[in-house]
Amino acid sequence: MVQVLNQIKDPEDMKQLSEPELEQLCQEIREVLIQTTAANGGHLAPNLGIVELTLALHLVFRSPDDKIVWDVGHQSYVHKLLTGRYEDFHTLRTYQGMAGFPKRSESPHDIFNTGHSSTSISAALGLAFARDLKREDNAIVAVIGDGALTGGIALEALNHAGNENTDLIVVLNDNKKSIADNVGALSTYLTRMRTDPRYFRNKEEMEDVVKKIPSIGPQVFKILEKVKEGLKHLMVPGVLFEELGYSYLGPIDGHNLTELRAVLDNARQLKGPVLVHVLTKKGCGYEPAEQNPGLFHGVGPFDIKTGKVHKSEGPKTYTQVFSDTMMQLARQDERVLAITAAMPDGTGLAPFAQAFPARFYDVGIAEQHAVCMASALALEGLKPVVAVYSTFLQRAYDQVFHEVCLQKAPVILALDRAGIVGEDGETHHGVYDLSYLRHLPELILMAPKDENELQHMLYTAYKQEGPVAIRYPRGKGQGVPLDQVLQEIPIGQSEVLREGDDLLLLAIGSMVNPAMEAAKQLASQGIEATVVNARYVKPLDKDLIVEKAQALGKVLTVEENALEGGFGSAVIELLQEEAVDCQVRRIGIPDEFIQHGASPILLKDYGLTADNIASVAADFVGIKKALTKRGNLKLAPFMGNVKVAFRGEK
Amino acid sequence: MVQVLNQIKDPEDMKQLSEPELEQLCQEIREVLIQTTAANGGHLAPNLGIVELTLALHLVFRSPDDKIVWDVGHQSYVHKLLTGRYEDFHTLRTYQGMAGFPKRSESPHDIFNTGHSSTSISAALGLAFARDLKREDNAIVAVIGDGALTGGIALEALNHAGNENTDLIVVLNDNKKSIADNVGALSTYLTRMRTDPRYFRNKEEMEDVVKKIPSIGPQVFKILEKVKEGLKHLMVPGVLFEELGYSYLGPIDGHNLTELRAVLDNARQLKGPVLVHVLTKKGCGYEPAEQNPGLFHGVGPFDIKTGKVHKSEGPKTYTQVFSDTMMQLARQDERVLAITAAMPDGTGLAPFAQAFPARFYDVGIAEQHAVCMASALALEGLKPVVAVYSTFLQRAYDQVFHEVCLQKAPVILALDRAGIVGEDGETHHGVYDLSYLRHLPELILMAPKDENELQHMLYTAYKQEGPVAIRYPRGKGQGVPLDQVLQEIPIGQSEVLREGDDLLLLAIGSMVNPAMEAAKQLASQGIEATVVNARYVKPLDKDLIVEKAQALGKVLTVEENALEGGFGSAVIELLQEEAVDCQVRRIGIPDEFIQHGASPILLKDYGLTADNIASVAADFVGIKKALTKRGNLKLAPFMGNVKVAFRGEK
Repeated sequence: MVQVLNQIKDPEDMKQLSEPELEQLCQEIREVLIQTTAANGGHLAPNLGIVELTLALHLVFRSPDDKIVWDVGHQSYVHKLLTGRYEDFHTLRTYQGMAGFPKRSESPHDIFNTGHSSTSISAALGLAFARDLKREDNAIVAVIGDGALTGGIALEALNHAGNENTDLIVVLNDNKKSIADNVGALSTYLTRMRTDPRYFRNKEEMEDVVKKIPSIGPQVFKILEKVKEGLKHLMVPGVLFEELGYSYLGPIDGHNLTELRAVLDNARQLKGPVLVHVLTKKGCGYEPAEQNPGLFHGVGPFDIKTGKVHKSEGPKTYTQVFSDTMMQLARQDERVLAITAAMPDGTGLAPFAQAFPARFYDVGIAEQHAVCMASALALEGLKPVVAVYSTFLQRAYDQVFHEVCLQKAPVILALDRAGIVGEDGETHHGVYDLSYLRHLPELILMAPKDENELQHMLYTAYKQEGPVAIRYPRGKGQGVPLDQVLQEIPIGQSEVLREGDDLLLLAIGSMVNPAMEAAKQLASQGIEATVVNARYVKPLDKDLIVEKAQALGKVLTVEENALEGGFGSAVIELLQEEAVDCQVRRIGIPDEFIQHGASPILLKDYGLTADNIASVAADFVGIKKALTKRGNLKLAPFMGNVKVAFRGEK
Repeated sequence: MVQVLNQIKDPEDMKQLSEPELEQLCQEIREVLIQTTAANGGHLAPNLGIVELTLALHLVFRSPDDKIVWDVGHQSYVHKLLTGRYEDFHTLRTYQGMAGFPKRSESPHDIFNTGHSSTSISAALGLAFARDLKREDNAIVAVIGDGALTGGIALEALNHAGNENTDLIVVLNDNKKSIADNVGALSTYLTRMRTDPRYFRNKEEMEDVVKKIPSIGPQVFKILEKVKEGLKHLMVPGVLFEELGYSYLGPIDGHNLTELRAVLDNARQLKGPVLVHVLTKKGCGYEPAEQNPGLFHGVGPFDIKTGKVHKSEGPKTYTQVFSDTMMQLARQDERVLAITAAMPDGTGLAPFAQAFPARFYDVGIAEQHAVCMASALALEGLKPVVAVYSTFLQRAYDQVFHEVCLQKAPVILALDRAGIVGEDGETHHGVYDLSYLRHLPELILMAPKDENELQHMLYTAYKQEGPVAIRYPRGKGQGVPLDQVLQEIPIGQSEVLREGDDLLLLAIGSMVNPAMEAAKQLASQGIEATVVNARYVKPLDKDLIVEKAQALGKVLTVEENALEGGFGSAVIELLQEEAVDCQVRRIGIPDEFIQHGASPILLKDYGLTADNIASVAADFVGIKKALTKRGNLKLAPFMGNVKVAFRGEK
């Protein structure tokens, strides 16, 4: 029963609470977190780990005047609960409900939108400079996990801020995890601080020793001064951060509210950059999440009592098929390598990591480095596959251009979660990859219509001597049978799925099956569509598309990607270049950011359904008949997206 | 007179040389560097600083079996001279001559193409893993400047490699400069090591002291052990790197060949990751470059005796006009800020930095952080302008998406060097910005036709409440008069420069004036073109473009950007959406990487000239006449690029 949490309409309300009430509050928050994520899914383990830290932050600082930036942002649930959003918290991650990440539009306490990792120190430094310029004196706090600290932008900002004379508090939420186990030297360094008792010794004790060292003659006196200087390193555990210019405080028990408040209060008094090192336990307070923080990092609906995630029935996910195919390829060819940026589970590489540890690389949350390193491995004759979510590859755009395409390095980019991803929302949808990749020379870019085609495409990519990107959607496959023998799909070869005389439905990836369904609906209305599975966005199957477009006179492209610069855009570029006389319409994502919510709802909102494809196609064919008399309409108006008003014929 | 260098056809040839001959070789290399860059321009100062280091590397290691990766790569001239490329060195940076950066296609000694900063450690780690997998035992060396070490990907890889049990040597070429003075805590840390005599003391001397500390009773004996441990920090100057897992060697005098060879030889013996800290002097051996390493970092042709750069006559550059306008805006409004990623000179922000130091931020080679920090400043009500080369903004694509556009932060992105940049070549051309930016919601994207329009566009951007990107070319403006009063250009409003009935020349940015010239040529042939300066790529001036396209029936788009997903692509998307009955051709950069060479040559190669525009337009109009009888050709074939074979009419 919630008795305290519902009283907290603003963080200030907390400041009246007694210690037992605060303890009760922590308890209630954990219950609400568990209940809500059990129902809606969400990032449970990170939030359970940060309950006391969030309370302490809001007790010591005065949000929103003092500004707290949550790195990545999936750990901001507790913050949301404490900033007047308890009543609506049950809508978390649902369509038109509360976002799973901080959003400026949702609350003045959400200072900076996050979602992609490692931006908090950079943003906080910007906020600190702004405060200085405005001659204000509020505190600025970045809360960043040790995993996020492996990201390049975090390190860029850590380096910059350490040298600036501005007040900035970096709270390092050290749970030894990013999403999987952490990698990198910084992580090892932090672990050493956690485990080495030297770092916990009494400072006074050490100074005492120094005092006791007798003066042993003038010739070494000066050197002894330096010995004392050297001891500083011994007495200050965070020497690395001290060397980078930070006042280091820690490590602190992140579940001891009293200690946290004291240290944060201290941090608040210090000038210049401060690093507060907090040790937390991911999943703290819920046994199943403590036992398996990876699973409960971002979890689907689950049973609270057993901690068992509700199994969804149905076919294998694209991720699983990718995973299986990687295993198959790796067994056949020891040159096959797998690289992930801190997502071995999400990308399906965990079995590969277990079976082929020497050929598996988790580089941390470091997409730039992942792609660059892959290019070096590829140029040395190996077969690296970088498995990454579409939205996160955005971080490595320059590396795809520079290290991969420019050098024609045979790197395989496996882009999971391409298209609409659902509840994680606008920061996570992968709807730009076709637009940001297809203009890069040398790159082959493909998207499978189903999980069976995915395995053949991965095999095809593996056979190439240049770079390849494959994008595939989140979630279940189509449930089609999986061929036992992998086959190469000739580069640039599309697939005609259905022949009809009335129009060409030209679809890519996840939209091929809806297009086929639409064709069936159309057939029942007497409209016969040709359906082509494009397979390749680059190179396009030029001859076939031109031939069909010319023959049918009407082309409707369908894609789960931005319309600007995407697949349909490539098609009309082709039709323009080849001077094909036909009408074109395009269905895809319009020029706006897509909110969070269940994928089927969002897909429907954006007209990415069989019904809408059929409806647009029927209208398209109808318009043709009406206009044949006038004769001069050669390109049909865009109305692929149901949200865009029909502009009327001209 | 070159007597030794011309004997060196392979680095192995050097190993026979006596010490005096090696000294002579250094001298000759410096002469050749100075002579060649005085004639061709180039990165003189970085190469003068690295002569002895490059010799030492090639003396100690056995390239190309041992693999040396040159970060950024503009300091690879000496390496080129020592690897059989002396004879052709005079063609440096010229059209079809030697590249100014390492290129795999040029020599087996060029292991990895560089050009953008901070990739060497990541690439070297990939090479090291490849070596381990192949069970080879060659050495892998990354040579990285202290400036490049501020880049996120370098820090990602530094962190990763430090924790890996693989042999890798990172040579830190510490010249206290990236391009301008360095920024950040790491830089300060390195400087401390350079200047603090503690770091140069004798290690043995210190150990001696430790031994002399008498045992002072059992109760402190154990603690004394820890004191010794603490002293390690004192004895090892590179504690920060040691903490990150590297064996640290240094700092070493980078102009003492004997010392360099000894330390590199030592590094070669060590297992695991090693960091060799080398102190060099940028411009070493050429007085004008030593005095002004910024100017001689990347320099145009100059007089060797005086060190004076040949002044090119003519109008102000776009950079200068940007610089002046920034000063004007900053004087009027104290909210105006300027941010650069280590390029205060190149971007023209140096005067701003001098006049408004409190409002100027050089974040180091850290484009991601620059853009993210700018968004935080913008959200706090300030007016940050991020000045960056088009090609380098590729590093911050995700930040433009996530931190800027998603939050609708009024950041101004000033993209200098957009389009073809000339001698720096394929890594530096800025020909993708329109393609990678225009699909991002909320972003306004513009390009001025001349330097006068640039100042108005910057003012227009400054007036907006959302994000704006302005792209403008390298080099001189058009020499037009500069208005004294800055004016807002209504968002999405194009400019009709000329009216004619035969076709629409729709040009953007740098291609507007060539289009106007082409129109004059066409007029002399009796063809009257309407010329429109599009100004905006996003939002397009939809009404005007649709109206003109409909009225004229033929649209020729011209842009200094990739055709795929670029400006012309946006135009045909619009014409498709609006169902405009017209023919379209596009002139722009085809789907290939552009080599280095003088810009006028490259522009001509790619048909980005008035002559070619006129020629394509004349052909376009001619085709229309020929085909009117057949009647059904509505889109003309693409032949904008002279390199692409004409496909013939259909």
